[in-house]
Amino acid sequence: MTLKEDAINLHRMVRGKIEIHSRITLDNTDEEKSTLGLIYTPGVAHIATEISKNKELVYDYTSKWNNVAIICDGTRVLGLGNIGPESALPVMEGKSVLFKVLGGINAFPLCISTRDKEEIISFVKAIQPVFGAVNIEDIESPKVLEIIERLRNEVSIPVFHDDQHGTAVITFSALINALRLLDKKLMEIKIVISGAGSAGYGIYRILYEAGCRDIIVTDSKGAIYEGRSESLDNSYKQEIAKKTNSKKLRGTLSDVIREADVFIGVSGKADLLNDEMVKSMNSNAVVFALSNPDPEMLPPNALNAGARIVATGRSDFPNQVN
Amino acid sequence: MTLKEDAINLHRMVRGKIEIHSRITLDNTDEEKSTLGLIYTPGVAHIATEISKNKELVYDYTSKWNNVAIICDGTRVLGLGNIGPESALPVMEGKSVLFKVLGGINAFPLCISTRDKEEIISFVKAIQPVFGAVNIEDIESPKVLEIIERLRNEVSIPVFHDDQHGTAVITFSALINALRLLDKKLMEIKIVISGAGSAGYGIYRILYEAGCRDIIVTDSKGAIYEGRSESLDNSYKQEIAKKTNSKKLRGTLSDVIREADVFIGVSGKADLLNDEMVKSMNSNAVVFALSNPDPEMLPPNALNAGARIVATGRSDFPNQVN
Repeated sequence: MTLKEDAINLHRMVRGKIEIHSRITLDNTDEEKSTLGLIYTPGVAHIATEISKNKELVYDYTSKWNNVAIICDGTRVLGLGNIGPESALPVMEGKSVLFKVLGGINAFPLCISTRDKEEIISFVKAIQPVFGAVNIEDIESPKVLEIIERLRNEVSIPVFHDDQHGTAVITFSALINALRLLDKKLMEIKIVISGAGSAGYGIYRILYEAGCRDIIVTDSKGAIYEGRSESLDNSYKQEIAKKTNSKKLRGTLSDVIREADVFIGVSGKADLLNDEMVKSMNSNAVVFALSNPDPEMLPPNALNAGARIVATGRSDFPNQVN
Repeated sequence: MTLKEDAINLHRMVRGKIEIHSRITLDNTDEEKSTLGLIYTPGVAHIATEISKNKELVYDYTSKWNNVAIICDGTRVLGLGNIGPESALPVMEGKSVLFKVLGGINAFPLCISTRDKEEIISFVKAIQPVFGAVNIEDIESPKVLEIIERLRNEVSIPVFHDDQHGTAVITFSALINALRLLDKKLMEIKIVISGAGSAGYGIYRILYEAGCRDIIVTDSKGAIYEGRSESLDNSYKQEIAKKTNSKKLRGTLSDVIREADVFIGVSGKADLLNDEMVKSMNSNAVVFALSNPDPEMLPPNALNAGARIVATGRSDFPNQVN
């Protein structure tokens, strides 16, 4: 059977990859004399009253401490784009399984039917009482970057953005390992990031915070630099323009990749990188072609062109960074 | 130990009465060759695509078919009143346990930090993709009645209001049984309902739909009748005024309970009913004093005063109706 048939059969069989599980056994249903009388009325009234006197007790007496909301509006699901919240649900249920099996965390998928920035922000604010943290996932950029920034200022629980923070952390980790093998130093190398969406922005930020100063980010119009007239239409690209590419290099990827030590591709564009570009990089070049499912350059081609360390976002090639 | 100590110890020990459970075992984490590759990328992309082509498939491929959202804004929690959404969470987690253990249903508690009617309606609309039904619980009246009416018109999934529909169904069932024992007929009896909030409104509606025509509802101002100048300030009380008490009886509960066959108390007022009132009812009188924790009349007193069948909302007395 094909992967598609296998996936459909499995989903049709389980009809939901997650479920709610009671941690309480109800020995009998006599409220006054059993567990039921403690976890529901009348006993639970004492818990509710205690929390009303000291809100922080909600972390001790309920599941809030271990609850994460996975928020998605269905506008940028996997590589499939804007396919709607219902279509996002099986993906977010899969994510919930990962949270539980790998991390022991209760992550509930909230795929919502509004795409409006303000409504999404209001929604997350409204659910704060139940969740210990929020994970934002697969919402289109740059809207999602604004949402994250607003939420981080306006809500009282941690806000994690998988496409921005998750990808940045894993890419940074991989880069530390690569540079250790090559005996290069983070402060001394030139890095080109292709793609200025959530992932590109997150990666630029973590590298900048770590001390890299020779970073160039490219988008569909070429290198981003301060003063570029074209398509610097959101504050995130403007921040990138200000903090990177201090020499104001202009031109396409092939122009600015010369003498780079590291290429990080989060462009979503297959085959963006070619032999000539890799050959123009410094020796011991690192190529992270992370776009999925089709990377900016296939690993064998990158290695043939002279790259020393190659990674992709795919699990069927060596060195998965995802 | 006291009930309070027992309840606190239990909640402190479990730290959450519910959790998310994965229905999938991940045999290994190699995406291409294992379950992970089917439930998450790349396999799940086929499921997402199928749903994007036919939204109804979300019921076949995800947990939506069995998911219920428990919505509460913390404004009318148990008999404790407006104690906030955090304080409501342990109660709604208890409700979730009941849904799971008794009904096999995944009910997730969404205690939200907005009390605004329009925001609550928008919130419920936003979560429709994930849930097969909504249960509204412990929101203050009459706001909640308006919310229910709006949602029933504006959302595509069933909306259940526990305080209105749940209480009405169980009270109606108990009344059918009581009348069978007493050989009285629903169409021929006089019923007085004390309380015109969510429960009182729901009970009047179900009795009216079932064919009762001699119903009188009282609130804090006495009998509700068409044209009453006092406190008919919401459309639900206006509907009650129009559809019940066709003789336009006026006065207090003690005035209108004379020659009633059935008293149903959902007033929230302890000791509202006294010996004289019960004695003024018809023979074989039915007294459902359902307010919790303190009923309108204690069962021994009601029986002493001549009531034939007595029920309360409490589990420590016989005949619990709740």
